[in-house]
Amino acid sequence: MNTLARIRIVLSNTSHPGNIGSAARAMKTMGLSRLYLVTPRHLPEEQAHALASGASDVLDQAVICASLDEALAGTVMSVGMTARRRALSAPIGWLAEVVEDVLPYAQHGEIAIVFGNETAGLSNEEAAMCQRLATIPVNPEFGSLNVAAAVQVACYALRQAAEGVKPAPYITDSGTPATQEEISGLVDHFERAAVGSGYLDPALPKRFAPRMRRLFARAMVEKEEIHLLRGVLAALMKKPE
Amino acid sequence: MNTLARIRIVLSNTSHPGNIGSAARAMKTMGLSRLYLVTPRHLPEEQAHALASGASDVLDQAVICASLDEALAGTVMSVGMTARRRALSAPIGWLAEVVEDVLPYAQHGEIAIVFGNETAGLSNEEAAMCQRLATIPVNPEFGSLNVAAAVQVACYALRQAAEGVKPAPYITDSGTPATQEEISGLVDHFERAAVGSGYLDPALPKRFAPRMRRLFARAMVEKEEIHLLRGVLAALMKKPE
Repeated sequence: MNTLARIRIVLSNTSHPGNIGSAARAMKTMGLSRLYLVTPRHLPEEQAHALASGASDVLDQAVICASLDEALAGTVMSVGMTARRRALSAPIGWLAEVVEDVLPYAQHGEIAIVFGNETAGLSNEEAAMCQRLATIPVNPEFGSLNVAAAVQVACYALRQAAEGVKPAPYITDSGTPATQEEISGLVDHFERAAVGSGYLDPALPKRFAPRMRRLFARAMVEKEEIHLLRGVLAALMKKPE
Repeated sequence: MNTLARIRIVLSNTSHPGNIGSAARAMKTMGLSRLYLVTPRHLPEEQAHALASGASDVLDQAVICASLDEALAGTVMSVGMTARRRALSAPIGWLAEVVEDVLPYAQHGEIAIVFGNETAGLSNEEAAMCQRLATIPVNPEFGSLNVAAAVQVACYALRQAAEGVKPAPYITDSGTPATQEEISGLVDHFERAAVGSGYLDPALPKRFAPRMRRLFARAMVEKEEIHLLRGVLAALMKKPE
């Protein structure tokens, strides 16, 4: 099941068409496409399309609604995004936690994430229609998140949770990991160079070799890098001739 | 300790002042304030201040740098934000995980999060200067995240993670992470040794220095290890006398 295809982003009473366009772009970058607009002050127009920048399809398919009630029709879960605590409202939680809690509902139907007007946010009536409220952690002294920025963050949190995002392997394209023996060979070479140059007293090696081993193990050193390092060491050790 | 106060947002070669303004606002909403601009096409001007919308203080205090090297001076950890895999680069991971891994370094000094130019992203040279690379999970068919939107998402992830910082995964009791300058010093030392020993032709350096930089960036090399390695190199280079 494509969870993200079952999520609606609902923008209520948005004033600036540019914000609708930026929100559409933000949605699409995260793989969401179902935009609902409740009584926008202006229908998506030129400025919205300019800011959508490649996400015009999201704007074109946007559903214009006369009320939040209409925008929530058919959903099994709705989350109101709010910056403030309010009396008489649904339980409020941090965005990441609420998203984790509500995503499983996508198995049963559609989920709406609701954003209020740029100036006032959600009205108390709108907030009361949502089953959950979520807040984005912000700087308490400057919490003025633009509505498109809030959509971006929320869609990021949704994508993260929907994918159950796994770590990308810490492997690069270019290199071949060195074997244990190759790492030992490098460490031995460094130790011989350290002794041969007079830097290290072989009677008092302290923890030179273990430290080098630890460094190059942690480094996930690659074959090609070992060639380079040993090449330099060999050239340096030959120098006196 | 206020972890977020130790994080620099570095914007390299940004073309549009409006993006710088929006990035400043995005930073401030999440409680970050240290903005570094590497050779911006335009200095923050009217349009940047308009879009900063209440975050003009972040713009006013922005540090303008002539190179990424300069912007990373004094940091103990740097994360390049990238949308793509690349050859010869640091390990790449998902934003949320990389952020978890690197935040503990704030106990030792400053952390830089580096964003490339709007069109091309980070250059390979810039990416190679970063100790880690992070990617934001996006819609594979439409990954066109505006740079300010990427800053917003990254700062959100940083704020999220800053609230529950765990001990650094790669740091042991014994080690202190090296600074960017110390790593550069080690790489320079290796290059001089390679040239001085006849291993490397200075007219044809190939990719020696970038490869060394990449290795030691990935290694999360510690101060003490740099002392050991440079000690051996210095002793080897003195040997002929």
